[in-house]
Amino acid sequence: MIEFFRLQTRAEVLALYPRFSRVGAEEVGLDDALGRVLAGPVAAPEAVPQFQRSTMDGYAVCARDTFGASVGAPQYLEIKGEVLMGAAPVRPLLPGEAFRVPTGAMLPEGADAVVMVEYTAEHPDLTLEVRRAVAPGENLLAPGEDVPAGKLLFDAGARLRPQDLGLLAALGITRLKAYRRPRVAILSSGDEIVPVARQPGPGQVRDANAHLAAAQVREGGGLPLLLGIIPDDFGALRAALAAAINDADLVLISGGSSVGARDLTLAAIRDLPASEVLVHGVAIRPGKPTILAAVGLGSGSGARPLLGLPGHPASAAVVMEVLGRPLLAHLSGLEATPPWGRTVTAALSRNLAGASGREDYVRVRLRPEGETLWAEPVLGPSGLISPLVNSDGLVMIPLGLEGLLKGEAVEVRLFQ
Amino acid sequence: MIEFFRLQTRAEVLALYPRFSRVGAEEVGLDDALGRVLAGPVAAPEAVPQFQRSTMDGYAVCARDTFGASVGAPQYLEIKGEVLMGAAPVRPLLPGEAFRVPTGAMLPEGADAVVMVEYTAEHPDLTLEVRRAVAPGENLLAPGEDVPAGKLLFDAGARLRPQDLGLLAALGITRLKAYRRPRVAILSSGDEIVPVARQPGPGQVRDANAHLAAAQVREGGGLPLLLGIIPDDFGALRAALAAAINDADLVLISGGSSVGARDLTLAAIRDLPASEVLVHGVAIRPGKPTILAAVGLGSGSGARPLLGLPGHPASAAVVMEVLGRPLLAHLSGLEATPPWGRTVTAALSRNLAGASGREDYVRVRLRPEGETLWAEPVLGPSGLISPLVNSDGLVMIPLGLEGLLKGEAVEVRLFQ
Repeated sequence: MIEFFRLQTRAEVLALYPRFSRVGAEEVGLDDALGRVLAGPVAAPEAVPQFQRSTMDGYAVCARDTFGASVGAPQYLEIKGEVLMGAAPVRPLLPGEAFRVPTGAMLPEGADAVVMVEYTAEHPDLTLEVRRAVAPGENLLAPGEDVPAGKLLFDAGARLRPQDLGLLAALGITRLKAYRRPRVAILSSGDEIVPVARQPGPGQVRDANAHLAAAQVREGGGLPLLLGIIPDDFGALRAALAAAINDADLVLISGGSSVGARDLTLAAIRDLPASEVLVHGVAIRPGKPTILAAVGLGSGSGARPLLGLPGHPASAAVVMEVLGRPLLAHLSGLEATPPWGRTVTAALSRNLAGASGREDYVRVRLRPEGETLWAEPVLGPSGLISPLVNSDGLVMIPLGLEGLLKGEAVEVRLFQ
Repeated sequence: MIEFFRLQTRAEVLALYPRFSRVGAEEVGLDDALGRVLAGPVAAPEAVPQFQRSTMDGYAVCARDTFGASVGAPQYLEIKGEVLMGAAPVRPLLPGEAFRVPTGAMLPEGADAVVMVEYTAEHPDLTLEVRRAVAPGENLLAPGEDVPAGKLLFDAGARLRPQDLGLLAALGITRLKAYRRPRVAILSSGDEIVPVARQPGPGQVRDANAHLAAAQVREGGGLPLLLGIIPDDFGALRAALAAAINDADLVLISGGSSVGARDLTLAAIRDLPASEVLVHGVAIRPGKPTILAAVGLGSGSGARPLLGLPGHPASAAVVMEVLGRPLLAHLSGLEATPPWGRTVTAALSRNLAGASGREDYVRVRLRPEGETLWAEPVLGPSGLISPLVNSDGLVMIPLGLEGLLKGEAVEVRLFQ
């Protein structure tokens, strides 16, 4: 059977991702939760703060008792107690009274404001001279002012930042339901590939792509499983892929760059039980010979994605950035993340011709010069790794555009 | 002894960091090296590629033999062999000959170009018809074209990205000298603080700040050591700080917010052997009551930094962003990192008044609206955590500026 595949656009490929289920959830402790993605909404089980708290060093008072107070006409209150940090006030405060309170202390019942110590004087007979009026609610936090009990704090799909963990800690939430980190199997195929620790013989090269992809997976919140090198042999490839798809939430196979090696990989993918090749060729440059397949697990339990990466390292790296990362984000349960911080606007340092019929991803180095941030294309064949190392990000020349002009403002997608 | 401290500017505080030694180096494996900081320069121990490699499926030839070839007037060569992936060619190529080569294969000696299969036809007598001329060097990678042997690849202080690991893998570099992750001790002080897992009694609050700081440390590449809660007691504080400074590369103490608690912390720091309080008050808002001390280890082995954070969570978070992160970066061995991706330019959604005599850090939420990205101030006292959670970053109103105007373009320092 001959199948004719047309190149699919990046948008068409991304639109296929929702057919893959997200990974399951697990419970994580607060100290392991940084960067994790919430598997369900989180609401506040209680209020923060739970009591009326002073925000200043001073005196708890009834605000009304201070009305009209000034330096020239102070009001006088009786100091009847002191609230210690972390302790409950010994009794309610009555009109005409003041209790000493440090910042953070609980206010006694009956108090509705705090006079800052700067605007007072204590007399030896424990009379407090108040030189400035306070309004009810001044210099205190009301119960629930930070977070009311029951408030929805986070939706499912939120990635947790430090301040989010701070808030969860304040609420006593020490265990969270988060999506598992997706397990990503990484296979390299090719008779010429040797493990990184081995000295390559003539005609052999080390398995750089697997390590590059593993690091990109790690950056994207996944757990890479480096499953090693498979020879260019149909049976070996098929067996390795079948095993990987059972163990992992996503399988990446970095195929060979030759047509023969790619055909072999494709044939092995096609031969997997319940496999469906969804994409065979994407309209991006580099990265055209990308494969996306859905491989069934049998017994109706859904299908897992298999991404076939091009053999050239620069092509594989671009495909991982442009297609692999969003797939990993989907599997991870992450909801759409805002674009800021992932891109920067720069001025293109030279004219760039696009790739006819494909989105073109050009590596660029960023160079600030006075007020201008230049994006300088770093050219070189996609078989090389060093241009990637010398780059800070990618500039995309959209489909249907002949190219970009020197000086044009371009959005640089940053390598993170 | 009464000491008078004036508020120091942020720049003055940052200028003190070089007096602290960077952490030591350790050896890390390639798979643990993502995000690590190199402790020494790395040069290429060998060339990449090590041999002349084809970048196309086609035929290895002497370019000269193809000169003048066209569809109308092809040149004819004898197919004398084939190079297999990962194998050495069986013999050199002679003028007039062609060897079949897949993409990535080693070229035989004597070949200086590859004709793409698209521009050829094989005749049954193993004659190759070449319909297009190739120039010497066409469709191949020369030895060392990606990386020449001996080339300096990375300077000390570089943080390793995925593509950097890919290049190191290609070179067979599996062990690297990286700076250790700085160990950062985190202490909380205050009689009102209880562990996160405990239900606070009246007047008590959970230790949110320590968890917020720990996550910020982790984000900055450090290893947080949560050392727990110390009561507001001089002896206990002094003992805890002395132990922490021996175990950690940096000590963070989140002190109380009251003047009394702060004075106690300062007294305990002053009483440590060979301690010097370098900063007591910084001209930033929030974050004024920040302390930086150098605590000696005795026997002339240098001093370690101790950062006293304000008690209010929002103040502590800002101080960690603005002063803690750069200190951690310095200790980590990180060289100055480029600003892109850490900030984004946005339009301020309302007028903002600055803090007289202090740099003012205002939390903002980012909201895209058409072509405009708005920075909306999220106000609220610094005793609250939720405004931090509702924010995407900070806008700084510089010292000496009365404020910023609605619609003004501001640089938002992103929370990462």
